[in-house]
Amino acid sequence: MALIVQKFGGTSVRDRTRIYNVARIIMQARAAGHQVVAVVSAQGDTTDDLIAKAAEISAHPSQREMDMLLATGEQITIALLTMALQELGVSAVSLTGWQAGFVTDRAYTKARIKRLDTERVESELARNRVVVVAGFQGLNRSEDITTLGRGGSDTSAVALAAALHADRCQIFTDVEGVFTADPRKIRRAKKLKDITFDEMLELATCGAQVLNNRSVELAKKYNVELEVLSSINPVPGTVVKEETDVEGMLIKGVAKDTNVAAVSILGVPDVPGMSFKVFGLLGQRNINVDIILQSTGRDGKKDLIFTVPRDDAENALAVLEANKARFGGGDISVETDIAKVSIVGAGMQSHAGVAAAMFEALAAQNINIQMISTSEIKISVIIEEKLADRAVAAIHDAFIH
Amino acid sequence: MALIVQKFGGTSVRDRTRIYNVARIIMQARAAGHQVVAVVSAQGDTTDDLIAKAAEISAHPSQREMDMLLATGEQITIALLTMALQELGVSAVSLTGWQAGFVTDRAYTKARIKRLDTERVESELARNRVVVVAGFQGLNRSEDITTLGRGGSDTSAVALAAALHADRCQIFTDVEGVFTADPRKIRRAKKLKDITFDEMLELATCGAQVLNNRSVELAKKYNVELEVLSSINPVPGTVVKEETDVEGMLIKGVAKDTNVAAVSILGVPDVPGMSFKVFGLLGQRNINVDIILQSTGRDGKKDLIFTVPRDDAENALAVLEANKARFGGGDISVETDIAKVSIVGAGMQSHAGVAAAMFEALAAQNINIQMISTSEIKISVIIEEKLADRAVAAIHDAFIH
Repeated sequence: MALIVQKFGGTSVRDRTRIYNVARIIMQARAAGHQVVAVVSAQGDTTDDLIAKAAEISAHPSQREMDMLLATGEQITIALLTMALQELGVSAVSLTGWQAGFVTDRAYTKARIKRLDTERVESELARNRVVVVAGFQGLNRSEDITTLGRGGSDTSAVALAAALHADRCQIFTDVEGVFTADPRKIRRAKKLKDITFDEMLELATCGAQVLNNRSVELAKKYNVELEVLSSINPVPGTVVKEETDVEGMLIKGVAKDTNVAAVSILGVPDVPGMSFKVFGLLGQRNINVDIILQSTGRDGKKDLIFTVPRDDAENALAVLEANKARFGGGDISVETDIAKVSIVGAGMQSHAGVAAAMFEALAAQNINIQMISTSEIKISVIIEEKLADRAVAAIHDAFIH
Repeated sequence: MALIVQKFGGTSVRDRTRIYNVARIIMQARAAGHQVVAVVSAQGDTTDDLIAKAAEISAHPSQREMDMLLATGEQITIALLTMALQELGVSAVSLTGWQAGFVTDRAYTKARIKRLDTERVESELARNRVVVVAGFQGLNRSEDITTLGRGGSDTSAVALAAALHADRCQIFTDVEGVFTADPRKIRRAKKLKDITFDEMLELATCGAQVLNNRSVELAKKYNVELEVLSSINPVPGTVVKEETDVEGMLIKGVAKDTNVAAVSILGVPDVPGMSFKVFGLLGQRNINVDIILQSTGRDGKKDLIFTVPRDDAENALAVLEANKARFGGGDISVETDIAKVSIVGAGMQSHAGVAAAMFEALAAQNINIQMISTSEIKISVIIEEKLADRAVAAIHDAFIH
């Protein structure tokens, strides 16, 4: 008998049919002799509908009241799913975030879990019940309702699995697992049997949206084995864990991220402290800088080129223009028609020539590389956006057979 | 400066416009220097929509899960109303039933308030905030969410007013107050300036649906002065209190109740214990008997005629037929085309001739009285249903000028 935490997202519980589908998945786990804690999100578009209701009332509603409002979404799902389980003869009980013991900090709409008091959940498990928990929400020290932000239900599930020392945390979603590339675009994309936490984090950062990053970080920290699988097709998914088979695949995935813009500052004085001035300004405004390229100095000047999320490009340009005098008044420009294409895989640490093979695949397609960035388990290149899909296909072909 | 509890029903908060209307009513009370606690219901049809969602899942959902589900309705309203108040510049905070300290028994879907811990509400009032509380809901000792049943928000408001020693409890609704008769039918119906708790209770029992009976009982018990008034038309409403002006109106209202059926059992043996057998059977099935008429015995037999809610008539007939042998096998029949017409007024205690004047008004219309029932402040008659509206008009004309 194992203890399994199963998380079901909004699409998986969007209507009566899907709720019964989820109830049957839980029933099967019970029939196999397991204890189950189910963590659920709000149904389908419920959260968006609630946000629209608030927007009707106020352009800038208080965050405390937003959390009070949004927390009703999951509360509706837990009641309905529990009713469905009971209708199927499965003993079950629903718990809101605060009933399940989620204690968070005060950061409304993006709270972080500080503590999890699992007595109630454990006592319900001891009564042989399936415990259906509202994801995404908790209670702060003032006994006010908080939410963990979008994707927070994944984090709730992993935190519960860690606190309960669960044997596995299954994240049910509308895809069958983690693929080597977007299967809607790359016909030959393969579903991975397993992937390490670090690879998963790099893939997510590189634009592959399967798991919420905070939940993967938390799973890595507490070594909670995750499984990503489909709530519709009952086939094995992808296991995310600390270490995978050393003889496994060299490259775990090829990802494309188009939320990228390149900022160039030409003719910056080649003196110490210039980079600090530029990146300090951006950091103060919470603008994340990703890849940085710096030319070698010539005539006492250098060029600085770096990428930021495309969403932040306008903000970045505005703050840099306003403070131009502080770094020598060089020409500032922004380029937005670019994309980042990355390959991720822990195997590349011990295999030479991965970068060369990637660049070769791009050269064969006549694709020019504008910037390069590497980590121990990742290589990213910046190229023209319109060439990105072709680049992904070529790289995928080169590495994954 | 007074402390006022203001309760707003589902119609009063059904959409953005109505929510802002309510926010402005609260803002006016604040501007007049009062502290305000607002108790609200779920918006418009929200509760019915949630019940329909549950019905899709299960024909007989668990009552605990129903309460978990339904409690989201008021939680949505408190967040939206608080946002509207803040948008108008009024400092405000929302509290769910459990945050506001409502502790109830375990009777899911029809819980009774056992205790009210008002520290949180008082501390928010001390911070000069309007406190917006979810009506209809509380928490039981197991820390599970309960609801007080339909109309429970009135009860929440009165309980809060009592616990906080509020100066007044205002029940805002879609009518302007309590009328001497249904103003949609009796053109000359007058709005009452005031009415006693007892009169209000009798009127409610006689079919006038303005206030939930439990809330009036609670207001009487703790002597909370109630005011029933319109959330749309800003005119004085009706005050419900312990004593009204002794020189006031003799009769406070004429009411019609068509949820009535008469059950006749003919030829019951005229021996002790027969009534107990009949009414004991009905009591066990929670069927309330209202007016009872018993013929004098003749030839060792008597007839028993009594009224029950029309909704329960079939059940009553079934249980009596099944147990016929126990009370002598007399003929059992049910008549459903009847109505109860009542006049209510504490003044009739000290005025002779009220009953005579009522019967005279009916006689002048050639309306036959089938049964009569009186209390200190009420006279009810059972007549043919199709004559009920004419009877109400005639009686109203006779007493209210």
